[in-house]
Amino acid sequence: MTSEIQQNVSGWGRLKAFPGRLGPKIVEAARKIKKLGQDDPRRIIHSLKVGLAITLVSFIYYVESLYEGFGGSAMWAILTVIVVLEFSVGATLGRGLNRGLATFIAGALGFGAHYLASRSGDKVEPILLGLFVFLIAGVVTFIRFFPQMKARYDYGLLIFMLTFCLVSISGYRDEDLLDVAHRRMSTILIGSFTSVFVCICICPVWAGDDLHNLVASNIENLGSFLQGFGIEYFKISGEVGESKTAVMQRYKTVLNSKQSEESLANSARWEPGHGPFRFSHPWKQYLKIGSLTRQCAYRIDALNGYLNSEIQTPPEFRSKIQATCTKMSMESGKALMELASAIKTMTPPSSAKPHIAESKSAAKGLKSLLQAGLCEEIDFLEVLPAATVASLLVDVVSSTDKIAESINELATLARYESVEHIIVEEDEAAGSLHLQPIPPCLNTSGEHHVITIDQPSRHLP
Amino acid sequence: MTSEIQQNVSGWGRLKAFPGRLGPKIVEAARKIKKLGQDDPRRIIHSLKVGLAITLVSFIYYVESLYEGFGGSAMWAILTVIVVLEFSVGATLGRGLNRGLATFIAGALGFGAHYLASRSGDKVEPILLGLFVFLIAGVVTFIRFFPQMKARYDYGLLIFMLTFCLVSISGYRDEDLLDVAHRRMSTILIGSFTSVFVCICICPVWAGDDLHNLVASNIENLGSFLQGFGIEYFKISGEVGESKTAVMQRYKTVLNSKQSEESLANSARWEPGHGPFRFSHPWKQYLKIGSLTRQCAYRIDALNGYLNSEIQTPPEFRSKIQATCTKMSMESGKALMELASAIKTMTPPSSAKPHIAESKSAAKGLKSLLQAGLCEEIDFLEVLPAATVASLLVDVVSSTDKIAESINELATLARYESVEHIIVEEDEAAGSLHLQPIPPCLNTSGEHHVITIDQPSRHLP
Repeated sequence: MTSEIQQNVSGWGRLKAFPGRLGPKIVEAARKIKKLGQDDPRRIIHSLKVGLAITLVSFIYYVESLYEGFGGSAMWAILTVIVVLEFSVGATLGRGLNRGLATFIAGALGFGAHYLASRSGDKVEPILLGLFVFLIAGVVTFIRFFPQMKARYDYGLLIFMLTFCLVSISGYRDEDLLDVAHRRMSTILIGSFTSVFVCICICPVWAGDDLHNLVASNIENLGSFLQGFGIEYFKISGEVGESKTAVMQRYKTVLNSKQSEESLANSARWEPGHGPFRFSHPWKQYLKIGSLTRQCAYRIDALNGYLNSEIQTPPEFRSKIQATCTKMSMESGKALMELASAIKTMTPPSSAKPHIAESKSAAKGLKSLLQAGLCEEIDFLEVLPAATVASLLVDVVSSTDKIAESINELATLARYESVEHIIVEEDEAAGSLHLQPIPPCLNTSGEHHVITIDQPSRHLP
Repeated sequence: MTSEIQQNVSGWGRLKAFPGRLGPKIVEAARKIKKLGQDDPRRIIHSLKVGLAITLVSFIYYVESLYEGFGGSAMWAILTVIVVLEFSVGATLGRGLNRGLATFIAGALGFGAHYLASRSGDKVEPILLGLFVFLIAGVVTFIRFFPQMKARYDYGLLIFMLTFCLVSISGYRDEDLLDVAHRRMSTILIGSFTSVFVCICICPVWAGDDLHNLVASNIENLGSFLQGFGIEYFKISGEVGESKTAVMQRYKTVLNSKQSEESLANSARWEPGHGPFRFSHPWKQYLKIGSLTRQCAYRIDALNGYLNSEIQTPPEFRSKIQATCTKMSMESGKALMELASAIKTMTPPSSAKPHIAESKSAAKGLKSLLQAGLCEEIDFLEVLPAATVASLLVDVVSSTDKIAESINELATLARYESVEHIIVEEDEAAGSLHLQPIPPCLNTSGEHHVITIDQPSRHLP
């Protein structure tokens, strides 16, 4: 009896503790949700946009006259919005165009297949239909394995297969196939247009902008590592704050950025001209820059391994190479920062040139230092880590040079124009000057306040 | 007149040349198709499987008695097969479960929403429905941004949103909502089961096997680079064949393998036990091994930069470090090869230990060599590249050690058992020994011919 009561009590205790244990979990979940929204508020806006688009197309159901026209096919409008409306304009346009075109072509082909089969007699019809469906499904599935097709047309191929099968097979039962096809096609178009409209007209997210900013901020991350590295490695100032170390470690996101860059570039190719980007903006060049940036990041990862090395460099060797190494690191860091800001402001990367020249001359200086017979009374083993760091820094300098070259190419391809920095003095009449601030998404570095003059209209769609 | 004839002639010429110009393109396309199939013949089988599965579910249309039961809902079976049947069993199961569960829960919720709204009067009903749909669509879209949810439940969330909207909104028009829902649910289940059945029963492709092999072959690629590096760098044998260089450059695929490893691991988690893998096989540990492998690959990428260095190492320095460097590289290469084969054969990586010990002792040897005052009459600048290579090789040795440790962990987690190598002599009675060959996918290295004894049944599902 006592034990029974005790059990009951402990049962109550558990029940009472339940909300107590759940509490921290809810708080934790709320914290995560808040962070997700704060990290990129466009996510919240996108969620609202999806809700809005679905609500819009569901009017086909609510409005009597519309529903009479479409009937059960109204479902396809909702389905289309849900699968087509993506985060970025490029992805949405790509999906919408893929869906529209694939539905149209496959619908026509499916109708042809149905027509052929229905003319061949009752017994042969299902066999012929089955053969067509088997063939198309197999061939399209195989085509989806091609990497180039997968990247751009995967969704279209899926919809092609789906529509062909549905139209040709359901033609076996539906009498008024053309009528059904017509209604479905219209609702799919309504769904696609609603998605594209909502996506472009309400706070549009451009994949091109994201790619542009991602590539620039990746270069920036490498730059801030290099700017901090010399000071950190030679422990020049005793106090390297934790925040500084955290900033330096951001280079790690660059190592695995290939996938996101490629998917953004794929989406960006579908986008019309917007802001400073033309329709045929050289998005492929960003992939080239990204790949060189990653190569530089691999060297930086090797450098990072030496940051907390235990082996003490002999002071006489250290004092000799410290200045040049710090300079190499700092100057190539500055060059990368300038390159990133050149991308962000879409100006030719001329301001990076002096830093690259400085870093190269520092690398040469290191060489002559080493040739000048440094190693008289030093222990080679103790010197080795610092020598490796120096050697890796020389690699980084040449890597930076390559990145600068590819950004120069980008500037030529995208016809960046040099921007005159004008000090707009107060009360000076701007006159014919058409002052146009850089859109916020392109000016996140907060370092360059550039005013562009009369941006040519070629940037517009 | 003459010019007209000439135009005609040139027109004909162009027409005749047309198939001639098209010819090479067709040949090129055919070559690509053949290569795609040869690279992985499972792609051809998968294409046939998709065709078969769709043909199977389309019987609902062809067979009178079946069509009477399902009517237009038969469409959902075809749709389900097309979107659920994926290349690997894990991905198919994941999609099928996601689709089934999401449809069921969202259908029930949607029905509830419809019931609530329909009880609230004709005018309020569409407003209430719109509100529900807006809320659910917005919240679910936001949840899809969580990386953990996106990785495993993205498809389920999409289907949840889709089903909820379709059921609740179409309830506004359809009178016999429950009947429609019942028929749709059954056809979706039929589609899912057909997909899973075809996927598992006809030449199944297991994502777990692919992950297992990918991680092992990545390690192998690093191993073959290191085995070739010493010889190549010090130009020990004059002739390093082109094929050898091509094999060495395979390490580059490792640099960007993160994405495919993660997606395979996500799929693998859905898979039941199969072959030597249990249901709860530690797939996460493969990601850890993969990440350490990539870290090692970054160092190897830095090493690769020194392969074609123009600076000639002074012969006296070279001859001093050549032996130890070649040994470090060769032994860690061998260790990685052994580790890869340990993964492939699922045995504890004990055979790698001696090589790791050798590579570590070579690294120590290098240290004592360097301490023994190497730098008497050498030019530090000329020595620097070789010294960096030596230093990077020391990094690679410690990196290899870390990889070995994580594979040891895997062996413990997955309870790999050590395998006794038995020389099965001819005519010797096998008696109670149950000889079981390693499946071909796990024995592609071709180096180890292992016979396992009485593998415990815990491996079975």
